[in-house]
Amino acid sequence: MAKQKRNAFYAQSGGVTAVINASACGVIETARRHKDRIGKVYAGRDGIIGALTEDLIDTGKESATAIAALRSTPSGAFGSCRYKLKSLEANRREYERLIEVFRAHDIGYFFYNGGGDSADTCFKVSQLSEAMGYPVQAIHVPKTIDNDLAFTDCCPGFGSVAKYVAVSTLEASFDVRSMAKTSTKVFVVEVMGRHAGWIAAAAGLVEEQGIPVVILFPEIVFDEPEFLARVDQLVRQHGYCTVVVSEGCHHADGSFLAEQGARDAFGHAQLGGAAPVVANLIKQALGHKFHWAVADYLQRSARHIASKTDVTQAYALGRKAVELALQGHNAVMPTIERLSDAPYKYRIGMAPLAKVANVEKFMPRDFISKDGFGITEKCRRYLRPLIQGEDYPRFTNGLPRYVSLKNVAVPKKLAAFDLK
Amino acid sequence: MAKQKRNAFYAQSGGVTAVINASACGVIETARRHKDRIGKVYAGRDGIIGALTEDLIDTGKESATAIAALRSTPSGAFGSCRYKLKSLEANRREYERLIEVFRAHDIGYFFYNGGGDSADTCFKVSQLSEAMGYPVQAIHVPKTIDNDLAFTDCCPGFGSVAKYVAVSTLEASFDVRSMAKTSTKVFVVEVMGRHAGWIAAAAGLVEEQGIPVVILFPEIVFDEPEFLARVDQLVRQHGYCTVVVSEGCHHADGSFLAEQGARDAFGHAQLGGAAPVVANLIKQALGHKFHWAVADYLQRSARHIASKTDVTQAYALGRKAVELALQGHNAVMPTIERLSDAPYKYRIGMAPLAKVANVEKFMPRDFISKDGFGITEKCRRYLRPLIQGEDYPRFTNGLPRYVSLKNVAVPKKLAAFDLK
Repeated sequence: MAKQKRNAFYAQSGGVTAVINASACGVIETARRHKDRIGKVYAGRDGIIGALTEDLIDTGKESATAIAALRSTPSGAFGSCRYKLKSLEANRREYERLIEVFRAHDIGYFFYNGGGDSADTCFKVSQLSEAMGYPVQAIHVPKTIDNDLAFTDCCPGFGSVAKYVAVSTLEASFDVRSMAKTSTKVFVVEVMGRHAGWIAAAAGLVEEQGIPVVILFPEIVFDEPEFLARVDQLVRQHGYCTVVVSEGCHHADGSFLAEQGARDAFGHAQLGGAAPVVANLIKQALGHKFHWAVADYLQRSARHIASKTDVTQAYALGRKAVELALQGHNAVMPTIERLSDAPYKYRIGMAPLAKVANVEKFMPRDFISKDGFGITEKCRRYLRPLIQGEDYPRFTNGLPRYVSLKNVAVPKKLAAFDLK
Repeated sequence: MAKQKRNAFYAQSGGVTAVINASACGVIETARRHKDRIGKVYAGRDGIIGALTEDLIDTGKESATAIAALRSTPSGAFGSCRYKLKSLEANRREYERLIEVFRAHDIGYFFYNGGGDSADTCFKVSQLSEAMGYPVQAIHVPKTIDNDLAFTDCCPGFGSVAKYVAVSTLEASFDVRSMAKTSTKVFVVEVMGRHAGWIAAAAGLVEEQGIPVVILFPEIVFDEPEFLARVDQLVRQHGYCTVVVSEGCHHADGSFLAEQGARDAFGHAQLGGAAPVVANLIKQALGHKFHWAVADYLQRSARHIASKTDVTQAYALGRKAVELALQGHNAVMPTIERLSDAPYKYRIGMAPLAKVANVEKFMPRDFISKDGFGITEKCRRYLRPLIQGEDYPRFTNGLPRYVSLKNVAVPKKLAAFDLK
């Protein structure tokens, strides 16, 4: 068949990561190497909203240097959004608008960089575009710090958060150990991960250095007496301990730990996270002096301590997405297929979006220790390669040199569209 | 005069830092190069408590490799403590005990690595030892992340926290900027610093990259309407903003921001820090979606992103302390004397402890912008050199290779001593 030259559209979806721009870099640099097949690469300003509102960015206006710098710049360089398209039945209008915009700008390739929800959107765009007689090749580029996407061994974004959490837990634990004689005996740090405990699990990697760590997973119902007994035991044994609590940690009735806690002077809903709640439980029951931290965005934006494995894979999956499109694939996602743990070997595979969409992958029970507060050797073997290697950004005047793009808008061709 | 060979005692005091062990490294390595004058170097286990209870560590049992590794290991390798000796009048017994322990172990050099309180203790030990007929040369090695010691241009520990805060603020701000269209518009991060705003000020360094930042200093009384107006203005202008709140930020009546806030379901005192309180004020008044973080110990233990200037100075001041002792100085502290901002030049000076003890150094008003929410160019010129350069630790298997010492105890010679 005659190979037609068409434009590409790339968008970032959901919470951003330290390496999602590395995937963007992979997509754009690879597309630029195939100018015979791919014309312009447009990006959605603020994610899929940019497509719906026809607010497209012409990445062709960015220099090769700027695009290369994306590889070491955290966050979403084109903007991302939390905007979940409804089902085809509930809001066919939005999907049709997407195709209309794609048609207006001669877009034949759709690269969507996100988690489970965006895999689902990507799949639907592929289906509907065909039905509407304007076939678009829709390729999903996986991204989520939560590491909860199925059909891939790991997700870009996760390895860097895991490294941040492991390094930070190690460092803060050294600090507490120094102070425990007269001051802080328990340090509590809250980490992200939603319903999956992968990020919290990474803290377990420091146990090999003799650090006493208690992990509270979302996969394990919070058992207060058991937890307090474990903390008490470790403090007696080591003089201190570190608690890593996942934001998704919850009680038997499904309520989150953070919910039970704080109300302000006006009776407004809780302000705090799970960390202060857990720290206070320990103080009340055991009397230990505590400190607590909530890493929040610091953990997922910490490009300065990104995992080299993660950066490499994020870029490789972006590149592979373009290659798959050029090979004629549609409604697929490039994946990481692990071949061995040590030495770490993997290859880039491919999964059909029909299967991937909206399946969440939790920590297997045999990755969590019997008592529910730690990780197993099996889990360590899984995690270790993912935090391997450092990939420092360049620094100027003491600060990382991150790129901010020009993000020049493409002239609109269509009438305005109201986001409902 | 005949140079007598005597032992040395080194102790770490108060909150530890990412580089206090670099000072320890400077002290011990320099002492080892002067074996004709300095015999053993003992360290206090858990700081000055180790001296009071005669719990001394023989650093001679550690290899040269282990001592060298202290340079890139955060926290206090021998343990630190929060234990303030009372005034000579109120507890002369403790000071006399110190001298008794020093005499029993032939200790003629006392190197005390801490902040304002320990400078005071160091000064008193020097005075009393002379009065008791067992003169000890007491040299203070400055250390505090709060940067509030007078008579030195900056304090080891501060530059690395400043770098951590500036880098983290930059990275998290990139994240918020990506998400602001549909999600988080304001990110609030709480930083340390007690009554001084130096650490918070470091976040102001990212404004040069176009990041809208509002800083809440302890030196400026919190003005809620003014603050909300500033946040509102920045969100209108940029679509987002980042708020950096110092833990010491307070109201006109002296009460801390964190105090006004949260009570748990049982009416227990507040759990939260200032960050969730500030974030909630913004939500209530302006309705913006927020995220907040409390960096806590993560900031002061973050050796992985330490400032090279800071590490270099921490080591140099430890080395200089020993050199000053060998030159016959007593009751002094080596200091950083800045010669120029750009290019950054400094020399190591010396200040008498009689002057240094218990003087706090706050942010000068002309380092803070007129509206009280940012920093001036004068402040930037001061801060820039302090975060210069990276000094990465070595990594093994994805984690920093930090050293844990053997910390072998020295046999006791005296009767036990009760800490009151």
